[in-house]
Amino acid sequence: MTTQKLITKKKYFTFGEPPETLALECGARLGPLTIAYETLGELSKEKDNAILIAHAFSGDSHVAGYYEDDPDGEKPGWWDSLVGAGKGVDTDKYFVICSNILGSCMGSTGPSSINPETGKPYGLTFPMVTIGDMVRAQKKLIDHLGISKLLCVMGGSVGGMQVLEWCVRHPDMMHAAIPVATTMRHSAMAIAFNELARQAIMGDKNWNNGDYYNSDHPDVGLAIARMVGHVTYLSDESMRRKFGRKLQHKSDLSYDFGGDFEVESYLHYQGNKFVRRFDANSLLYITKAADYYDLMREEEDEKALFATCDAKFLVLSYSSDWLYPTYQSKDLVRVLKKCGKKVSFCEIEADAGHDAFLIPDPRLSAIVQGFLNGISTKR
Amino acid sequence: MTTQKLITKKKYFTFGEPPETLALECGARLGPLTIAYETLGELSKEKDNAILIAHAFSGDSHVAGYYEDDPDGEKPGWWDSLVGAGKGVDTDKYFVICSNILGSCMGSTGPSSINPETGKPYGLTFPMVTIGDMVRAQKKLIDHLGISKLLCVMGGSVGGMQVLEWCVRHPDMMHAAIPVATTMRHSAMAIAFNELARQAIMGDKNWNNGDYYNSDHPDVGLAIARMVGHVTYLSDESMRRKFGRKLQHKSDLSYDFGGDFEVESYLHYQGNKFVRRFDANSLLYITKAADYYDLMREEEDEKALFATCDAKFLVLSYSSDWLYPTYQSKDLVRVLKKCGKKVSFCEIEADAGHDAFLIPDPRLSAIVQGFLNGISTKR
Repeated sequence: MTTQKLITKKKYFTFGEPPETLALECGARLGPLTIAYETLGELSKEKDNAILIAHAFSGDSHVAGYYEDDPDGEKPGWWDSLVGAGKGVDTDKYFVICSNILGSCMGSTGPSSINPETGKPYGLTFPMVTIGDMVRAQKKLIDHLGISKLLCVMGGSVGGMQVLEWCVRHPDMMHAAIPVATTMRHSAMAIAFNELARQAIMGDKNWNNGDYYNSDHPDVGLAIARMVGHVTYLSDESMRRKFGRKLQHKSDLSYDFGGDFEVESYLHYQGNKFVRRFDANSLLYITKAADYYDLMREEEDEKALFATCDAKFLVLSYSSDWLYPTYQSKDLVRVLKKCGKKVSFCEIEADAGHDAFLIPDPRLSAIVQGFLNGISTKR
Repeated sequence: MTTQKLITKKKYFTFGEPPETLALECGARLGPLTIAYETLGELSKEKDNAILIAHAFSGDSHVAGYYEDDPDGEKPGWWDSLVGAGKGVDTDKYFVICSNILGSCMGSTGPSSINPETGKPYGLTFPMVTIGDMVRAQKKLIDHLGISKLLCVMGGSVGGMQVLEWCVRHPDMMHAAIPVATTMRHSAMAIAFNELARQAIMGDKNWNNGDYYNSDHPDVGLAIARMVGHVTYLSDESMRRKFGRKLQHKSDLSYDFGGDFEVESYLHYQGNKFVRRFDANSLLYITKAADYYDLMREEEDEKALFATCDAKFLVLSYSSDWLYPTYQSKDLVRVLKKCGKKVSFCEIEADAGHDAFLIPDPRLSAIVQGFLNGISTKR
């Protein structure tokens, strides 16, 4: 086991120079485009130990460890508890790839990127991208890395949607798949919350139809959008446990609108923090991609959906996740079984809501480690 | 049984002329003030058949029937399915009173009312009012009507909070109480949603610190605030049933941000409709009153809370209500039993979420009718 600190760096892969642009589901073409990514561990000579990790909606390619230019940084990558030397996804054994999704603002091409045709940020001229398009771009990266078959594709939330898209679109390209805290289709309630977030941004006086990059940004709307998100990531239970009715730095009610309760301060803090790192238009595009996501939009026959996919599946859900509740994972398991797939399923008991999959949890590490051991030794 | 249409009218009760102003929990005094109300049925000579119905957050005093100046109006009062001749709350037997809450904009004094001292709308100079203050104002009205003991106090949601305040503050003033789909204290999650709604309003470019009555109103923020509310009133289940992933007047995805799904159209419609009838500042004040609501804020001893109240209780909750879930009603029942009260409790199976208590339901009518029969015959 490597005991030194896991060090990584942000890399960029650019492709799709015209006329080799990327065809998108909406009918538009996009290119050139850049995908930011990081890799951890070593790719084997046989190129058979690669695990692709797909990040959630506001995540980035920095999945674990520390950047080489900031080795003593405050926070490691977002799934550092799971990914690293000797961890659930063992970087001493596996070559881990994580790429930033198309439409984001964390290094990959998105609405805040410069449109080479105009020399200005795309804004709303950026074409609508889908979960399928995100996977299309990831596929180009995997091809570029010379990997013909992934050991595993895994990810949570919107990352889990990408995992399932991979299995449907490139059914012979992975030995295993681990969709976590996700769904086969975005529910009406999930769409509703995303629409609230979008309305908050589009209602901001600075939004200016997405053309705000050279002026004040729609920070108020973006902060509210993030607060909406955070409420859905928590749970009634976890909010009671974390906040209850505790007052923030006060001994009595203020009788004004500044915010009395810790839960309000938490949301304000999360909203304001998000504004400093995320682009409002990217939120619009990525939430829309999630809303459009329906694995069965083009395939009505459940038995056909995963028919040609030879991956083994590990489906994980969390008991208090009400954004993508366990019944939606069970529905996925049902369809996978109907398609004759090998499926393991586990609902992890946790009160942290949808957020639970991002919280360090030895149970998740153990389950994933065991499953990956089975895959890498048995095939 | 009266078979003709139930006709009512909006009445106003004004009180609190200085120096007889109403003392509020925040320490301020308010007056003169007006309470809009309606009555249905006849008050008995003994004045012993009065039922006070408390409305929910955005409701009004028009609980049932039609206004006399609009007898063929499109919609009757908000609880017309429950209240009327021969109905669950039988206006042939009972004298029903419903008053608009303090802080609202439906006839009672609130932030949009003219401050007699300045000749301008109060706006944010309106003092913060609590659920207790709403009950204080209702008590003045009940006194004014010459009623010394109510047969029953009932209401759902924020109306249910008022019911419980009544029982704690005026424990000898009712024979019975029916809190519906409510809670003893606002949870962190409920506070979080209310704060989202407030932030949407206060972030609107037209809000102007509450001083917008002579200019453009914060309609965008108010509409978003209402959409937040509506999501919490529904349920995952009811949204799947009502909307699923159905597209609105489209056969395919639009690939733009105009809104594709029926659930989005529903929210837009509800938001825009609300803007035409409700005042944004009232939403701020009433949500804050709900957030401040904690029946045990001043009384730590559960056994003491209802000790001197001699009412019989009927506690009702709905199985899919996740805003004030059944466990919160059960907690109320537990405390009532600890206080030695007579309590009936029923969780009504329904998939409509918190909204369920407003949806016509013969089961609600039957339960309430039976309970009231027991009260009025046995005492």
